[in-house]
Amino acid sequence: MELEFIQWLSQHLPPPTRTLGGIGDDAALLEGDAAGQLVVTTDAVTDEIDFRRDEASLQQIGHKALGVNLSDLAAMAAEPLVAVVSLVLPRDEALSTAIGLYEGMLPLADRYGLELAGGDTNVWSHPLAISITALGRTTAAGPLRRSGALPGDRVLVTGTLGGSLLGRHLAVEPRVDEALLLNSRYRLHAGLDISDGLALDAARLADASHCGLVLDLQNIPISAAARTIAKTSRNRPVDHALGDGEDFELLLTAPADVAAEITDQQPLEIPITDIGVVVAEPGLFQQTGPGDYAPLEPRGWRH
Amino acid sequence: MELEFIQWLSQHLPPPTRTLGGIGDDAALLEGDAAGQLVVTTDAVTDEIDFRRDEASLQQIGHKALGVNLSDLAAMAAEPLVAVVSLVLPRDEALSTAIGLYEGMLPLADRYGLELAGGDTNVWSHPLAISITALGRTTAAGPLRRSGALPGDRVLVTGTLGGSLLGRHLAVEPRVDEALLLNSRYRLHAGLDISDGLALDAARLADASHCGLVLDLQNIPISAAARTIAKTSRNRPVDHALGDGEDFELLLTAPADVAAEITDQQPLEIPITDIGVVVAEPGLFQQTGPGDYAPLEPRGWRH
Repeated sequence: MELEFIQWLSQHLPPPTRTLGGIGDDAALLEGDAAGQLVVTTDAVTDEIDFRRDEASLQQIGHKALGVNLSDLAAMAAEPLVAVVSLVLPRDEALSTAIGLYEGMLPLADRYGLELAGGDTNVWSHPLAISITALGRTTAAGPLRRSGALPGDRVLVTGTLGGSLLGRHLAVEPRVDEALLLNSRYRLHAGLDISDGLALDAARLADASHCGLVLDLQNIPISAAARTIAKTSRNRPVDHALGDGEDFELLLTAPADVAAEITDQQPLEIPITDIGVVVAEPGLFQQTGPGDYAPLEPRGWRH
Repeated sequence: MELEFIQWLSQHLPPPTRTLGGIGDDAALLEGDAAGQLVVTTDAVTDEIDFRRDEASLQQIGHKALGVNLSDLAAMAAEPLVAVVSLVLPRDEALSTAIGLYEGMLPLADRYGLELAGGDTNVWSHPLAISITALGRTTAAGPLRRSGALPGDRVLVTGTLGGSLLGRHLAVEPRVDEALLLNSRYRLHAGLDISDGLALDAARLADASHCGLVLDLQNIPISAAARTIAKTSRNRPVDHALGDGEDFELLLTAPADVAAEITDQQPLEIPITDIGVVVAEPGLFQQTGPGDYAPLEPRGWRH
């Protein structure tokens, strides 16, 4: 559905006049000035799809709802400014639900200097849905975009991947500080946040950059949670790292010398790992030997 | 619920650092520069509450979802810039629903120079919910706010009021052009858009301005729809004008000489009518005789 809809939109939306690039990036990028470009992103989370109201606390749900939006700002290397929060609340417990959600959002907003600047509160007889729009501003280093990868770039990823269902999908840790640090200190070419799974998001980055990504599966940093799940799932741990999604780590590309500098210096509190190379041939691939590669299916969570 | 929640928020949100004023206006007002201040508003509409999926077309629903957000920009006298659209779609007909909604939004966006700059699409097994965030920019005349009314101001309203259930609640006509024209040409003190009913929104404007509004019920412009509904509703037409809501007309205050100029010149394609006066005594009142007034209950649609 999403692909068809984006295709429809691309045929029916007028050419953008106030934003750069249109559909594709994690957020819309407005024309800017010396103070930077304004970045706008919106993401909704809903009961039964993104969380289960009977399994997660309201504070966890609020944290996730805001966290996924902050992760989209991180994907563009934008500093968080303000967010507005639109709540659609089950009638029976509207007030306590709204308060519980904010109790989850407020500490996260505070940590990233984001102001919760208003919103809209609706009540109905159906499950909880939360839509947040976050605004950020790019820095002097400019925005990070999906479309900048060049053949020869190395592919980098922060943290470890897979197994988010064991907790991380709720306890989102948006890589805002990491993105700002990396983007200001190193010459990055492209980036996004891994929300739907490394393989699927890598394919998207390749597509946006009109090139290919070759992943070296042996180098993919696999989370402890992915290894735990693999014990009972019949899949390899690396399959979970490739396809589980909701890692909210950064996938980046940079020229080989810059990438080597980054992996040598390890400037973050979390690891950053070289997992592959950008090639001219469009598509997603796995390395099969020195200089050899074969197609890799872009599995993952398709909305 | 809404009042209690706003009270909770006012106790728990940190002081605003990036916006002016915080809770209260129709939109958040960001610190600006010579190009104006950025205005951000968000509004959700949901099935069974704001529309009935079985009675309204998708195009009408899309129009309304965007129209109420444009009306909030009008309330602040802001020029529309971009909007992001977050859809929560019933699974069975997700793609056709999304397309139908955009078919309703696109002409309205085009009319007001608003760019639809992205969004988020979610699918679930429950009814349709649409959350839109619109960004605008104030002009050289500055923003229109709820808090600027002063005793002695006259109270003005655009268009005619009441009976929105007969169609207008879907066919929202945001008063963007009217607000920009009035705000640029005349020295207005305060304003908002009437979404929940004249009486309730007048009480809110009075409250935000720490003063009172005295309405002359005989002068309230009553819509034909309100008169039609009153034939069977057991209420007076003026009660519908006071309480129906979803008129999306502008309620404004201006110094008496400015208000007289406006009502004399009638600079809009729709009427603009003097319906009362601002007084120092806090509250909402109806005029009972020359210089006399009595409390008026702020009825209306409370979310």
